[in-house]
Amino acid sequence: MEKKLSILVSNDDGIFSDGLGTLVKELQTIANVTIVAPDSQQSAIGHAITMHRPLRVQEVSKEGKFFGYAVDGTPADCVKLAIRHLMKYKPDLVISGINHGSNTAVSVIYSGTVSAATEGTILGIPSFAMSLTTFEPNADFSYAAKFARNLALNVIEHGLPNGTLLNVNVPPVPESEIRGVVVTRQGKSIWNDEFEARRDPGNKQYFWLKGELVELDDEEDIDQRAILNNKVSVTPIQFDLTNYEMIKTLQSWNITK
Amino acid sequence: MEKKLSILVSNDDGIFSDGLGTLVKELQTIANVTIVAPDSQQSAIGHAITMHRPLRVQEVSKEGKFFGYAVDGTPADCVKLAIRHLMKYKPDLVISGINHGSNTAVSVIYSGTVSAATEGTILGIPSFAMSLTTFEPNADFSYAAKFARNLALNVIEHGLPNGTLLNVNVPPVPESEIRGVVVTRQGKSIWNDEFEARRDPGNKQYFWLKGELVELDDEEDIDQRAILNNKVSVTPIQFDLTNYEMIKTLQSWNITK
Repeated sequence: MEKKLSILVSNDDGIFSDGLGTLVKELQTIANVTIVAPDSQQSAIGHAITMHRPLRVQEVSKEGKFFGYAVDGTPADCVKLAIRHLMKYKPDLVISGINHGSNTAVSVIYSGTVSAATEGTILGIPSFAMSLTTFEPNADFSYAAKFARNLALNVIEHGLPNGTLLNVNVPPVPESEIRGVVVTRQGKSIWNDEFEARRDPGNKQYFWLKGELVELDDEEDIDQRAILNNKVSVTPIQFDLTNYEMIKTLQSWNITK
Repeated sequence: MEKKLSILVSNDDGIFSDGLGTLVKELQTIANVTIVAPDSQQSAIGHAITMHRPLRVQEVSKEGKFFGYAVDGTPADCVKLAIRHLMKYKPDLVISGINHGSNTAVSVIYSGTVSAATEGTILGIPSFAMSLTTFEPNADFSYAAKFARNLALNVIEHGLPNGTLLNVNVPPVPESEIRGVVVTRQGKSIWNDEFEARRDPGNKQYFWLKGELVELDDEEDIDQRAILNNKVSVTPIQFDLTNYEMIKTLQSWNITK
């Protein structure tokens, strides 16, 4: 019998989120799936890891059966703990998601979903992040899950370069309305964030962050633009942040002592 | 009279840390300095932003004088709140640090210090991050602060490309032992992290993260290597994570529907 694939699944919406549940069911048709995910919502957590307090792990059941491990930490914590401690063998793949909401443009930097896949990549395992670009409460994750299953098989077949992961965003439309798949670049759109100042019952001030993504790109091969065209966006990203083109320029500056 | 520079300073070690204090004193010789920093230690917080709860801001004094704003949030929150709300005008520069500990190689991804400077860059302001590469409790930040002052003047003079910031690491030796400045690439060294499993007084298990950076690079132009050679490391980094080389490869994969 062929050895079954082993896939680690994590996310940032928490272990009981619909997006993770739908993804896991689809992946179980091709792999043994291990689930290690935050015990609560961890959106916009970036690539945080927990060093100043210990982590707790709980075994969690669903429909009367063991489902996975819930960790009181960040998405990156979950993947680190899974690979360094909880799993007997390294998985063949790490998949993060399916996130409820988009992770395009500058949001990639803030994304807990992406950070779980980044941590898999740092630990040497081919990884990708999946997001469904809607906040609609009853969103349908089924096409995104099918896409993830096919992508998983492709990643296993082709491999990924060291230090590179894939960031996938799927538009929230029925499969029949999906107009294809584009390999994209990370967009430059940013948030026009504002802080709304309010007063608590004791008259002390507090601030809520609000805002929306401002479209700054209109090229067809930009992540955010693909979604607007009802296309799946697949962006290859990396955690080497060096701006190689800037190195020569900097060498000409007067910054020696 | 010439208009004085305006510099926003933040960090991840908290508003009362020595590294920030030393930096601010040095910068005050060339600029009006606004300080907006976390009210507590925020190391390894990555590029987290706070969306699910409001933020509180406290005006903080030092030696009987107004010093700055302490925020119960992350480094990125501090910079966002400063630029979007607290400051009347956009600053000319954002400087984050001086961090107590290095931010090289893969640690750049986890770094709260770097994330504050990244947020400045996202908001369109030339920014850099400063770290002193030691955990020695009585570390001397004075040379790193002088370096930051000179670098600030250089950044003002030359500007930085859109979307690019500088990540600076300074070795913890007296100025006389500094052997120069190198423009570096982000190293590929990673942490050999382990989780130490312990039992609490109620016999429940918990996990502490521990580990050290494993040197995987030996080229002279790598951040971590510069430090070992007693040189200041300056790495140009960016928040466009796209791996452009990988785009062509991916287009040949079978990932359309």
